[in-house]
Amino acid sequence: MSEVIEVGVVGATGTVGQQFVRLLEGHPWFKLAWVAGSERSEGKRYEDAAPWRLATPMPDHARGMVVQAPVAGQGPRGIFSALDASVATEIEGALAEAGHLVVSNARNYRMEPDVPLLVPEVNAEHLALVARQAAARGWKGAIVTNPNCSTVFLAMALAPLRAFGLQSVTVTTMQAVSGAGYPGVASLDIVGNVVPFISGEEEKLESETKRILGVLTNGAVTPHPVVISAQTTRVPVLDGHTESVSATLEQKVDVGAVREALATFAGSPQRLGLPSAPDHPIVCLGEANRPQPRLDVERDGGMVVFVGRLRPCPVATVKFIALGHNTVRGAAGAAILNAELMKAEGFL
Amino acid sequence: MSEVIEVGVVGATGTVGQQFVRLLEGHPWFKLAWVAGSERSEGKRYEDAAPWRLATPMPDHARGMVVQAPVAGQGPRGIFSALDASVATEIEGALAEAGHLVVSNARNYRMEPDVPLLVPEVNAEHLALVARQAAARGWKGAIVTNPNCSTVFLAMALAPLRAFGLQSVTVTTMQAVSGAGYPGVASLDIVGNVVPFISGEEEKLESETKRILGVLTNGAVTPHPVVISAQTTRVPVLDGHTESVSATLEQKVDVGAVREALATFAGSPQRLGLPSAPDHPIVCLGEANRPQPRLDVERDGGMVVFVGRLRPCPVATVKFIALGHNTVRGAAGAAILNAELMKAEGFL
Amino acid sequence: MSEVIEVGVVGATGTVGQQFVRLLEGHPWFKLAWVAGSERSEGKRYEDAAPWRLATPMPDHARGMVVQAPVAGQGPRGIFSALDASVATEIEGALAEAGHLVVSNARNYRMEPDVPLLVPEVNAEHLALVARQAAARGWKGAIVTNPNCSTVFLAMALAPLRAFGLQSVTVTTMQAVSGAGYPGVASLDIVGNVVPFISGEEEKLESETKRILGVLTNGAVTPHPVVISAQTTRVPVLDGHTESVSATLEQKVDVGAVREALATFAGSPQRLGLPSAPDHPIVCLGEANRPQPRLDVERDGGMVVFVGRLRPCPVATVKFIALGHNTVRGAAGAAILNAELMKAEGFL
Amino acid sequence: MSEVIEVGVVGATGTVGQQFVRLLEGHPWFKLAWVAGSERSEGKRYEDAAPWRLATPMPDHARGMVVQAPVAGQGPRGIFSALDASVATEIEGALAEAGHLVVSNARNYRMEPDVPLLVPEVNAEHLALVARQAAARGWKGAIVTNPNCSTVFLAMALAPLRAFGLQSVTVTTMQAVSGAGYPGVASLDIVGNVVPFISGEEEKLESETKRILGVLTNGAVTPHPVVISAQTTRVPVLDGHTESVSATLEQKVDVGAVREALATFAGSPQRLGLPSAPDHPIVCLGEANRPQPRLDVERDGGMVVFVGRLRPCPVATVKFIALGHNTVRGAAGAAILNAELMKAEGFL
Repeated sequence: MSEVIEVGVVGATGTVGQQFVRLLEGHPWFKLAWVAGSERSEGKRYEDAAPWRLATPMPDHARGMVVQAPVAGQGPRGIFSALDASVATEIEGALAEAGHLVVSNARNYRMEPDVPLLVPEVNAEHLALVARQAAARGWKGAIVTNPNCSTVFLAMALAPLRAFGLQSVTVTTMQAVSGAGYPGVASLDIVGNVVPFISGEEEKLESETKRILGVLTNGAVTPHPVVISAQTTRVPVLDGHTESVSATLEQKVDVGAVREALATFAGSPQRLGLPSAPDHPIVCLGEANRPQPRLDVERDGGMVVFVGRLRPCPVATVKFIALGHNTVRGAAGAAILNAELMKAEGFL
Repeated sequence: MSEVIEVGVVGATGTVGQQFVRLLEGHPWFKLAWVAGSERSEGKRYEDAAPWRLATPMPDHARGMVVQAPVAGQGPRGIFSALDASVATEIEGALAEAGHLVVSNARNYRMEPDVPLLVPEVNAEHLALVARQAAARGWKGAIVTNPNCSTVFLAMALAPLRAFGLQSVTVTTMQAVSGAGYPGVASLDIVGNVVPFISGEEEKLESETKRILGVLTNGAVTPHPVVISAQTTRVPVLDGHTESVSATLEQKVDVGAVREALATFAGSPQRLGLPSAPDHPIVCLGEANRPQPRLDVERDGGMVVFVGRLRPCPVATVKFIALGHNTVRGAAGAAILNAELMKAEGFL
Repeated sequence: MSEVIEVGVVGATGTVGQQFVRLLEGHPWFKLAWVAGSERSEGKRYEDAAPWRLATPMPDHARGMVVQAPVAGQGPRGIFSALDASVATEIEGALAEAGHLVVSNARNYRMEPDVPLLVPEVNAEHLALVARQAAARGWKGAIVTNPNCSTVFLAMALAPLRAFGLQSVTVTTMQAVSGAGYPGVASLDIVGNVVPFISGEEEKLESETKRILGVLTNGAVTPHPVVISAQTTRVPVLDGHTESVSATLEQKVDVGAVREALATFAGSPQRLGLPSAPDHPIVCLGEANRPQPRLDVERDGGMVVFVGRLRPCPVATVKFIALGHNTVRGAAGAAILNAELMKAEGFL
Repeated sequence: MSEVIEVGVVGATGTVGQQFVRLLEGHPWFKLAWVAGSERSEGKRYEDAAPWRLATPMPDHARGMVVQAPVAGQGPRGIFSALDASVATEIEGALAEAGHLVVSNARNYRMEPDVPLLVPEVNAEHLALVARQAAARGWKGAIVTNPNCSTVFLAMALAPLRAFGLQSVTVTTMQAVSGAGYPGVASLDIVGNVVPFISGEEEKLESETKRILGVLTNGAVTPHPVVISAQTTRVPVLDGHTESVSATLEQKVDVGAVREALATFAGSPQRLGLPSAPDHPIVCLGEANRPQPRLDVERDGGMVVFVGRLRPCPVATVKFIALGHNTVRGAAGAAILNAELMKAEGFL
């Protein structure tokens, strides 16, 4: 893998776009060679166009890059998309049609039957949908997507539970403000407050999780039959979505077996040694008061789901707290892991 | 009810004690005549002993009161207790033995079989346990308790659901820092953070709620058979516990019937016209993003439980968000309502 | 003063507009009879047009009012303006020209030589500029303004110091997010953070304060010669601007004399007994760690400036901490006090 | 410098002690070989004794270390002290007497005439006081101190201004909660609030800064004659003290010359190439709204002072905003830089 592949980012100036730029700095396989943005940013230097909101400085390499228009056929073949949903359908479609491999964080194509919605540890085999996508749409390129941020952590934590007959899940989320982009949540709404509603979030959390946990047969994904009930809230946390989960399992397993299944969970990224893959995608914490966004969210590069307080649930079978980094494993890092999988599988 | 009754407060200098002092100011039935505190406060003026943390000024009436030792037989007959659990067993017991009616917010006696654990709208009839208490213990006085803060709101929201065959409840709380007293939660632990654990809280939420919803027969409370599973968390909110609740009901009622049952719920306080009783103990909010601590917690004197986002639950039967003021309806206001009930029923 | 005067509010749906609606509820002299907003709100019921962000419920009276277009000649004679600066020049001018008395919180006309910029306790006599305004502009009505929020508290705290020969002031502000309106400050910018810059704020704080403290002679205001240096910052506080002030005085007075001057400070509103006038516009606090936004900002109806930590300054003469409620005394409450002054003086 | 020196930490379990343990991990010159704590921690494994509050995981190396009693003569020669002021006088004195070189963050000995109070870029030559210390006290070892956290950033920012005739300084701080240790500031006091008082802080900021900027002549430090006036406040920020500074200079230099002096400022650590020394101890930021704790405090290893908004001051000569990491450059990192200086100068 000595050859470095040039990649681009569309929607590069927003909060997720900035995470792409940060995470691609020093990446062993990919080199950021092209950034694109809206008309307002076009032609500006990246450092002038992107109001940097991350606590690590903007990579020097990116500062002087000139922001391009997201025109199909002009950037590198592999393009990460941090586009806003209001424009992603059109732009991502045009890019894929023209031959680009679009590795997207946008929600627009996630539930399309022929578009892979990937969490590489969970359903790497869904990548095979790309073939159907080419056939169905006549695109020279393709679109591959990662889930909504709160979905990633739930899907990863539930994946090992499928072996015990996963039947239903009740989840309440406490989500960070960075998940809403910039300017996103108004400070008047969230300082010292909890907002018990995030538009569209519960629907995504329920439908996307079922699809990710589903099985690919005959070129189509059959969603997992698990029933999911979500209540999603916003809390005054910068980064890190916390999820309170109760899961009903068909088998009346003991908690030790569940912990073992979570802690030893691994998939294609670990087997293939993908650069962004953590050794253990799920890290179980034993302390009574963990995980916590402030103490845990930046650990292991933000690519891990932390599970704590795992114990029997008197209503369901087991319950626990999950935590993940919403703009890394829940967005830009997820897409980069998808691209690494595609490279390892020969798609990129 | 023209005669005003003198009352006292033990543990008067802490955060809940301060709420007692605030809420008794101008009370139509009760007059604060006596405050007691720990040895450290004894003999000091109240304004010097109590590091006031409320956003309304200390009542002038209280400023100059001299803090007493909590010695049985010295204060008024009716005494509110905001004592810390580490000393409440002994002091409350001694006060009751000596003839005081102790209306306590402490957890120590809540689960004693002969001590009423009251939410007056829900189980006012449990007050009859006082007779058994006198018989069993030989006390001249009595102890009556209110629940743990997060319990009050859950018990109130569930009470009307008993009519539909309440079977099980999954609840995740997001609790305010004032619930931990002062100094309570360290700012390093909670600024920009969620702590997914509160010591002892889940046990109280599960056991107290079942007892409150239970039936008194032959002088004993049979806990309600509902199965409750709680995960309790702390969030950077000053006042107001938010609870995400899913409830399974035997009857497959529609949501409209549940809303009607919640919105029309009332009990002894409303029937008796108790001074602190809200017209509607449960207020249903229709906006998609309510209730919120910042916008709702101080409404209706902090004595109401707000319920929002009521809708069908694909896993249980219904789900909703509940919110209440943890140091008012969840502590001092709850005890004052208990005392009002006792007065109306002739105990005080 | 038995007759109640109908008034209107333009810009009624924003955060300051909402404070006007709240503060006018139950006002003894004024009755809210007309609300106007932008095209987007026009024709809607107020409760549907105004995304209410205050912790007290929307007054029932206002809920059903239909939001009007801000057309000159249609509303009551007295109109409060909470208009955004981007539209205030035109709309306020048109209203005044057509005969309305516009009592404005917008910044647009504040520094016009013929427009009163009032803090009624400090410079009520500047109201006489209205005559010049009519003469100069040919308007049938007039515009009267209150200062920028952070200016009000500084101007009030400095006013009594003029007697000691006020020479220069160094001030650092820590301002609440509600001062920026809604959506205003993005939560990503302020949760757990300090932003050391507020666009245009320092200029307003310096120039407006000098004008308010100035003298009216021959129909023109000569700004006070005090030299002011301001650094303004934003902090994660909901309501309440805190100001750290050092003032150099010509006279080497002792701190006791300064405290006396502050604590006994009063002006026209107190003399005239205006309904919104606090007994003491400046309240001096003796505790070492006060004033604090959370504990003090709502006291005395939010119409008072709290001054604490008053002591000698080794560089200037005295230093202290000032605090005021930015959307009450710093905005809507300030304008209402202005209107009360105008009514008492026969202008309204 | 191939030989690695073993060092110890007393007070190793607190928040500053934890920063020592974190910063010594992988240090090129020093190896953590000994941790000591209070009686309560003694004999426990470090991971059990220290309630880790940092966002990076506890170094594996430290987890199993057994916490010792802070007994003179038992640990390594070089010992970092993160002791609480209540015990530092006795323990640090005993350690120095017995031959240890105590590199202390505690305040107890900072103002002793024969104890160096160092910011190595500013007054490395004060290290020579160690000789006098030995002579005066008969100690076989010595104590060397770093300043109070808020002092470090002010002293560094003012040091280059001495060349222009530094006369007086007015400073308002907005300090992070981590500066108060753990549990430190109660969350009820600081969520959504500003507390305008930190006990003892202003005195330290004024006196320590003058001493650090002072000149060593004939074995004694003459404090710099600059007059300093400080108001110190606490804000809801986790890490990073922000300081609003106005400085009066004898020379009427322009701002460009001041910026140049700040940006090119360097001292012994840079000349000696000390491992923890940043290339530029002061980093000037040109953006209008910087520095900010959230965006800047972790940059450059937390060892830099960021200065922004540098501009003329109409009252003094120049004004600016300074920011530094209070538990790194303001505490543990400061002490480690002191130890590196001592090693380079042959003391350790």
